[in-house]
Amino acid sequence: MSPQFASRMDGVHPSFIREILKVTADPAIISFAGGLPNPALFPVEEMAEAAATVLREQGRTALQYSTTEGDPELRSLIAKRYAEKKGFTVDPEDILITTGSQQCLDMIGKVLIERGAAVAIERPGYLGAIQAFSFFGPDWRTVELVDDGPVLEDLARVLRDRPRFFYAVPNFQNPSGVTYSAEKRQAVAELLAGSGVIFVEDDPYGELRFLGQDQQPLFTRLPGQALLLGTFSKIAAPGFRIGWVVAPQRIREKLVVAKQAADLHTSTVIQRVLVHYLKTHDIDAHIARIRENYGRQRQVMVSAIERHFPAEVSCTRPEGGMFLWARLPEGCSSMELFDLAIARKVAFVPGDPFYVDGTGGNTLRLNFSNSSEERIEDGIGRLGLCLKEYLARRGGKA
Amino acid sequence: MSPQFASRMDGVHPSFIREILKVTADPAIISFAGGLPNPALFPVEEMAEAAATVLREQGRTALQYSTTEGDPELRSLIAKRYAEKKGFTVDPEDILITTGSQQCLDMIGKVLIERGAAVAIERPGYLGAIQAFSFFGPDWRTVELVDDGPVLEDLARVLRDRPRFFYAVPNFQNPSGVTYSAEKRQAVAELLAGSGVIFVEDDPYGELRFLGQDQQPLFTRLPGQALLLGTFSKIAAPGFRIGWVVAPQRIREKLVVAKQAADLHTSTVIQRVLVHYLKTHDIDAHIARIRENYGRQRQVMVSAIERHFPAEVSCTRPEGGMFLWARLPEGCSSMELFDLAIARKVAFVPGDPFYVDGTGGNTLRLNFSNSSEERIEDGIGRLGLCLKEYLARRGGKA
Repeated sequence: MSPQFASRMDGVHPSFIREILKVTADPAIISFAGGLPNPALFPVEEMAEAAATVLREQGRTALQYSTTEGDPELRSLIAKRYAEKKGFTVDPEDILITTGSQQCLDMIGKVLIERGAAVAIERPGYLGAIQAFSFFGPDWRTVELVDDGPVLEDLARVLRDRPRFFYAVPNFQNPSGVTYSAEKRQAVAELLAGSGVIFVEDDPYGELRFLGQDQQPLFTRLPGQALLLGTFSKIAAPGFRIGWVVAPQRIREKLVVAKQAADLHTSTVIQRVLVHYLKTHDIDAHIARIRENYGRQRQVMVSAIERHFPAEVSCTRPEGGMFLWARLPEGCSSMELFDLAIARKVAFVPGDPFYVDGTGGNTLRLNFSNSSEERIEDGIGRLGLCLKEYLARRGGKA
Repeated sequence: MSPQFASRMDGVHPSFIREILKVTADPAIISFAGGLPNPALFPVEEMAEAAATVLREQGRTALQYSTTEGDPELRSLIAKRYAEKKGFTVDPEDILITTGSQQCLDMIGKVLIERGAAVAIERPGYLGAIQAFSFFGPDWRTVELVDDGPVLEDLARVLRDRPRFFYAVPNFQNPSGVTYSAEKRQAVAELLAGSGVIFVEDDPYGELRFLGQDQQPLFTRLPGQALLLGTFSKIAAPGFRIGWVVAPQRIREKLVVAKQAADLHTSTVIQRVLVHYLKTHDIDAHIARIRENYGRQRQVMVSAIERHFPAEVSCTRPEGGMFLWARLPEGCSSMELFDLAIARKVAFVPGDPFYVDGTGGNTLRLNFSNSSEERIEDGIGRLGLCLKEYLARRGGKA
């Protein structure tokens, strides 16, 4: 029997990063390839207490089916955090709980993307979004990212094609580490407002800022026209799979229908555990601890790069998040570099999969959240040697 | 701004049952409308202990991202249960953990259904599957169910159209309560084997048999041609959202790619909690307790129906599961009956949404798992009065 697959499967392939992560499972390899939060900072004891309490006190409801929209108390607590931390008002009714924010990307693709319709994304773009949207056959439009955000002429040009939406990660982007400046936010919001194109603002890392000034989501400047995605994966625990989206009613109604068909609802127990944790613990103190640690790790990586990388290799200097981005001279291949790196027991993710247009072969992503300061120092040293060796070989060939 | 939705959203509507469940939230209403397991039978204390232990002993990994395929130990335990309880061998590698089996329906739709392609389903069919598959624009083919399974001539005719797959719930089907007999299983497997059409066998209730002989899944007779779906929702807790699918490698590989784009992976914590529970508790003793309770509730409902329902109304006599199915004389409308029932504070689900072809307006579904024996007796009495009143009115009109 030869199964006949839907044609939407033609362009879809297993994640290249998954394959890389298999190679880097060897503990002798210093891996900057993954995108994992640091498990040493997980609130383990607090969650054990929360889970036991929730199950003992509300087990009959916590183990039952629940509503597709999500736990009303969790939605209220999320709205309250926006009001207290960011100073803007969100109606809890406008929040839909999702099974990680990855699920929301899938649902947005399902609800908004027609095969062959234009969809805009940053270049480089978040791989999980590229994968989720690809199932629905978008005709990609890309907007180049530079140090302070998108190239505005690129965005203006792309918006003229009336894409179904523009998907972006304005804070400490994965993979590039780029954050939109205040000026760029203003300009991007104006271009979007003028075009009427939906803005999908993904903000998984927004609370993980180590340097510079906090910025408002663009969502606040685009009433009725923007979706704002959030997640507990980076501030509590990714193993919970709890994210959310704030969406205008007309879009939210469709997302709820898609969510019901996708998994009925997100785990009742886990939602209740998070509610209990948020009500009985100071998540802001916890986030401050994550920020402090990642900030140090980022500083060690940036400083090691300055000492060890050849001058021809440029890197972003992220103000937060978990990643930084390196660019080799034009014509270089980070895939070839990867083989040298594995030989020296250090790993990264080649940048190529983050580009929907086949460019970016000379770029690479480095994660700093999930390695100790010692291993960052050691690994960047090794990678510096690989880069020198690679560039010398190329020089020899040229 | 007027968002432009994908055309796949045109035929998709909020679940009618969701709307009904809102009406029946009034505790004064005796509701046979929902499809909920009985929360009094949830293993609450055991899960509280399991959750606390897992988080305290393995918190750093249980709260982290994990593999898309699912926890290897959970997959092995599921395979072991098939071997021990059903006597057939499944390679744990062939099992993919899903976020409830609803997620698997969504992924099957995504991977296998092309817009306009034929897809076969039972008549009546499981509503969650109808909703999930509808997003992908199937051209429905239906196979009539009778007391011992599908009408074989119907199935043979439908298979000649080479549908992408035939989706069925052979044990205690939702909504009808019908179970395929041994003879029907044999005949259905032969028809499917001859046709080469993929069989999607959904088995959420298989372990909840009160009467009659256990039957083997058709999956065992269709090597390489069938998918077998299972779930912990009915034997442990639906609030966990843990299901699985056993699938041949070529299809499983595509499902894994779809799953990764859909939510990366199912909650690590919850999978570990289930592993701990399965290793330290006797789930079979727990299931025996559920079976015993539901069996009594089913018996009370069947016997009350015999005493209270007019002879013109026929009902299935399910051997297991959570539902039974009533059929009014042709031309009757269970939707009109619903209004009378609500006035007498009793509720059910009109059968219409379980039919993809607009028929079935004279049918209705009754759930017996989530009402006490007293309330079943009382509610069926009220419903009997409604039926008599409704049929008398119709008779009067005729």
